[in-house]
Amino acid sequence: MTTLLDALTGDNAIAALLSDQAQLSHMLAFEAALAQAEAQAGLIAPEAARAIEAAIARFTPDWNDLVAGMIQDGVVIPALMRQLRGAIGPQHAAALHFGATSQDAIDTALVLQIADVITLLEQRLNALQLRLAAVAAQDGARPAMAHTRMQQALTTTIGDKLANWSEPLGRHLNALARTRRELLVIQLGGPVGDRASFDGKGDLVAKYLAQRLDLGVAPSWHAMRDPIVAFGSLLSLISGTLGKMGMDIALMAQTEIGEVRLTAGGQSSAMAHKSNPVKAELLVALARYNAGLAGTLQQAMVHENERSGAAWTLEWLTLPKMMTTSGASLRIADELLAQISFG
Amino acid sequence: MTTLLDALTGDNAIAALLSDQAQLSHMLAFEAALAQAEAQAGLIAPEAARAIEAAIARFTPDWNDLVAGMIQDGVVIPALMRQLRGAIGPQHAAALHFGATSQDAIDTALVLQIADVITLLEQRLNALQLRLAAVAAQDGARPAMAHTRMQQALTTTIGDKLANWSEPLGRHLNALARTRRELLVIQLGGPVGDRASFDGKGDLVAKYLAQRLDLGVAPSWHAMRDPIVAFGSLLSLISGTLGKMGMDIALMAQTEIGEVRLTAGGQSSAMAHKSNPVKAELLVALARYNAGLAGTLQQAMVHENERSGAAWTLEWLTLPKMMTTSGASLRIADELLAQISFG
Amino acid sequence: MTTLLDALTGDNAIAALLSDQAQLSHMLAFEAALAQAEAQAGLIAPEAARAIEAAIARFTPDWNDLVAGMIQDGVVIPALMRQLRGAIGPQHAAALHFGATSQDAIDTALVLQIADVITLLEQRLNALQLRLAAVAAQDGARPAMAHTRMQQALTTTIGDKLANWSEPLGRHLNALARTRRELLVIQLGGPVGDRASFDGKGDLVAKYLAQRLDLGVAPSWHAMRDPIVAFGSLLSLISGTLGKMGMDIALMAQTEIGEVRLTAGGQSSAMAHKSNPVKAELLVALARYNAGLAGTLQQAMVHENERSGAAWTLEWLTLPKMMTTSGASLRIADELLAQISFG
Amino acid sequence: MTTLLDALTGDNAIAALLSDQAQLSHMLAFEAALAQAEAQAGLIAPEAARAIEAAIARFTPDWNDLVAGMIQDGVVIPALMRQLRGAIGPQHAAALHFGATSQDAIDTALVLQIADVITLLEQRLNALQLRLAAVAAQDGARPAMAHTRMQQALTTTIGDKLANWSEPLGRHLNALARTRRELLVIQLGGPVGDRASFDGKGDLVAKYLAQRLDLGVAPSWHAMRDPIVAFGSLLSLISGTLGKMGMDIALMAQTEIGEVRLTAGGQSSAMAHKSNPVKAELLVALARYNAGLAGTLQQAMVHENERSGAAWTLEWLTLPKMMTTSGASLRIADELLAQISFG
Repeated sequence: MTTLLDALTGDNAIAALLSDQAQLSHMLAFEAALAQAEAQAGLIAPEAARAIEAAIARFTPDWNDLVAGMIQDGVVIPALMRQLRGAIGPQHAAALHFGATSQDAIDTALVLQIADVITLLEQRLNALQLRLAAVAAQDGARPAMAHTRMQQALTTTIGDKLANWSEPLGRHLNALARTRRELLVIQLGGPVGDRASFDGKGDLVAKYLAQRLDLGVAPSWHAMRDPIVAFGSLLSLISGTLGKMGMDIALMAQTEIGEVRLTAGGQSSAMAHKSNPVKAELLVALARYNAGLAGTLQQAMVHENERSGAAWTLEWLTLPKMMTTSGASLRIADELLAQISFG
Repeated sequence: MTTLLDALTGDNAIAALLSDQAQLSHMLAFEAALAQAEAQAGLIAPEAARAIEAAIARFTPDWNDLVAGMIQDGVVIPALMRQLRGAIGPQHAAALHFGATSQDAIDTALVLQIADVITLLEQRLNALQLRLAAVAAQDGARPAMAHTRMQQALTTTIGDKLANWSEPLGRHLNALARTRRELLVIQLGGPVGDRASFDGKGDLVAKYLAQRLDLGVAPSWHAMRDPIVAFGSLLSLISGTLGKMGMDIALMAQTEIGEVRLTAGGQSSAMAHKSNPVKAELLVALARYNAGLAGTLQQAMVHENERSGAAWTLEWLTLPKMMTTSGASLRIADELLAQISFG
Repeated sequence: MTTLLDALTGDNAIAALLSDQAQLSHMLAFEAALAQAEAQAGLIAPEAARAIEAAIARFTPDWNDLVAGMIQDGVVIPALMRQLRGAIGPQHAAALHFGATSQDAIDTALVLQIADVITLLEQRLNALQLRLAAVAAQDGARPAMAHTRMQQALTTTIGDKLANWSEPLGRHLNALARTRRELLVIQLGGPVGDRASFDGKGDLVAKYLAQRLDLGVAPSWHAMRDPIVAFGSLLSLISGTLGKMGMDIALMAQTEIGEVRLTAGGQSSAMAHKSNPVKAELLVALARYNAGLAGTLQQAMVHENERSGAAWTLEWLTLPKMMTTSGASLRIADELLAQISFG
Repeated sequence: MTTLLDALTGDNAIAALLSDQAQLSHMLAFEAALAQAEAQAGLIAPEAARAIEAAIARFTPDWNDLVAGMIQDGVVIPALMRQLRGAIGPQHAAALHFGATSQDAIDTALVLQIADVITLLEQRLNALQLRLAAVAAQDGARPAMAHTRMQQALTTTIGDKLANWSEPLGRHLNALARTRRELLVIQLGGPVGDRASFDGKGDLVAKYLAQRLDLGVAPSWHAMRDPIVAFGSLLSLISGTLGKMGMDIALMAQTEIGEVRLTAGGQSSAMAHKSNPVKAELLVALARYNAGLAGTLQQAMVHENERSGAAWTLEWLTLPKMMTTSGASLRIADELLAQISFG
């Protein structure tokens, strides 16, 4: 069961894309594709690749053992490889994960998860744009009082207010498309990131691996985290734009102002007359939460040497929450727009 | 099942104290104690209080309905009160939650959770101090190279290094004792925080309520969040002190330095010779994560008017994670110290 | 005189681009170009534009009065317009700043400052890339021990280490070029951002204004701050990449490791034998500082209504410091690379 | 000349207490007191102490040389000691700074600065409390509409609103008094913090030094920064409480609500009818800025080994700005309360 707080501020669909199960299936996909790519490059035997593929296809993980391995090693891959090698059998076990390091599997799996999340975020952004366009078509010409510095300024229109919410969303969509190109690449470096463990065929393996996983090719980026951190900043911009929308709606819905009415506001346990702009406030809270996480994620740029356990774990503690928070903001924004009417 | 990341960076014992179930039981304790206090003050009938107490004693929540209420109202109390009133029956239903507001129940339940968490943190801090004292007794006199600004400086002792980790923990214990006095107070204000809803008996009800819940008395603090935020800062100091210890150990355990040996370091999927200081790195990651959350929680000080849904929700998004993170830091620090040997 | 701390952690060249004098000159350029554009669009008389231009050309501000106006109004423009109108004389005073609002002048001046800063950052990034390429040409083939998770891993090369510092800088250069296209646009909206104050000629004025200031055209973005905040995130990525380089160098320069030697490290007041990697540590400190500011700037996304004095001021408190910090990081990184030798 | 932004958001009085000149005079006071304490303890000759004292009394620093030393060494003390030793002359030069390290002088000077800042903050907090009490005496009984979750709730009183601003300030005053006891202690450790450089008389020197500087005695805390970081958190609580007051006043002063009137609001360059709640908005901006800095300062808890140049510099980049920001918040809060009237 989801927690009460997650029900309010989380997002089940994003959470599912980021679950342990989803991560594991992407790691397995990485290992299968790696074996195939290495067979294609002549680095391991074709029958080894087939054996690995077959073992992965029928693999059932021992989760308790994975948890124990995670605690012991700080990453799940050593335990997972032990389990998989047992499933593959002694003849071809050594071909599994050949030349690769834990981070290759984990980062590539993360990228595959991010790809799924981006798709969902794009769908929601597009849906939100359509809804805003529909609101604009219906109410855009209505006059609305503009407020600057918390004071009445001059009359403008609902359409002008909507444009403040919509234009940045268009930019965020463009930025997500750019993120696809820049971030959705394989991670393949081997133990210290130089592909020396692939017997001179590292770049070829990388090319085949990328093709099989439908990702871009890139040099190893174990210790270069700027595309990850830049994605986090974009996630915060998305929730920030929606936080601005939430703040505007909460201000417009104030009893004394009444430029927005809520058809299904929150109830109070003590005051029956109230209709609280719960979803508008949530958007503000989520924006501020994500803003803080964006700053914390930036701390992970200081990534010691060829792999920092500390900086990398800091990403794990922040980035998934940021994806969930941006996803929740989009979900709630859509629900909120369905609740409001103007005038 | 706990997630892989929670297994590494979380804390089951703290998580249990912060679960929905724990929160609900504290909310129910609040409502029962409130009814008793109000009967004691002559505000509701004694038989109403007994009926409420009895209904709460046998109450089984409908969690799906609570989730729906949470989503609708932004707080769980309206739905919970509906369920409880159904269980109490029409004669005494109106006496439940009499004069109170959602925030009274939620904040008091939070305080009761924090009381439990502080107890656990104190136990762990004391245990860690004992362990550090034992290490000092055994190895304190050994020489150790001091490093300033990442360079060898002069020889000092292991005992001097240990003092850098231990002295702040003593201060944190003192600060937790102070937090007990300052933060572990009831929340009781009624709809707008002025206790006007208690028919002139608000202060009396507050006194009786505090006695029954073994908490301190205080004026309503709905919109004054400084003790909550100060507690968050203390949580970050705790994980920060342990992050410094982790960083020191990771530096001392470097292959070329070898002042610390790890008897059970993490394994690499690619390099069999390695023994990674996983727990030391985790302490650094958790310190940086909590530091970021401490800053985000400070944003919740800007609490609009008599109750801000946005600022309050921001507390919910950060403070529980901070308690878990500090608890996990203490757990991991203890495990790490059990793994290391000097020289 | 610059302060001691600024001498260490600041950047005089960036500070000059962000000085009050520089800002004022850009504001005056905005007002002159606006008058010319409005004359071109037939909105004010050509002789008014000429009078404005002439008054601006010979204008000497009364700084004390500007300071007083800043304190009174929260923005400097009302006081500046009073001074300028006095200089223009009664006949054409009303044509100054016609239809515009303070934010139009201030944001456009900021954009012009950012344009100058980007140029400087690009020069420094390119110079740093050249220096890294020269180091790679000389020492790239040397073996170097890779370290993962703070432990010796396998031997790689200095060239591989340099690539970790250089590749992200290339991405940052691309991102700066993109920022030019996306952020270097005029701000022109009038009091509430809808250009209604320009008598139907707002878009035409905007076009001419942009041409005269060599900026892009865009709709008013008074309350849409995502391009500003995205620029801040990029600034933090730049200092973050250099912080990673600094951390690597500080780790490599450890006495026991000695993979890097510093020819001019910092002296200690107590230990004559030391050569402290001061500049390497500075890069780490600046990275962490900018990371925090990046998170704080993200909070400014929640921009109330048509203009938020609070959110806007928060930008002023953070963004200039971020530009200076990134500039200082680049300056120090270059100095540091000139100090180090390998092996 | 102060900058325009500093005029708005800074604080001249705090800035003066934190100036290079103030810091230098405290460093000189430390060195003079150290010499006296060391003579008292029999560690240096009495005539050496007198010569040092006399040289310091007539000392004029060469600031350009100090700046150059700061850049070279990352701390100003080596250059300052060279200058001072020149002033003392060869006979007693070696007795200056005997056994001490740069951090001893710098941290103790910081503590002396903080003592001055705390005194000023306390004066302002007390003055603000008096002003709030005066407002309460005049207007406290007036009815005021309470707003919860951005909606009208029930009628309460101005006095209840004022209590939300005043009660936390009382707690902050208590916390400042506690900070005096816990933070206002000498720093004296010698090169690696163990006082081994004081020939067995370190604790005695520490005791005499503390007496002469009117500070508390404590073991060396070079690498234990929790009291510094805790002070930063308190600074953020102060500006946070005032940010909440500013937000409340901005909300109450909204045109449509009009519960607060501003007698001297900010003017708009475009809308003559406006009276902007500039100071109220500033309080919000400063609260959010300080909240972010509080999180960044927490990152400095991860202080490597016996002295971290990176973590220490991060304190210098944040803590002074936090003191100035809290001071500015108190200044502006007082000005704001002088501007408002109710009803």
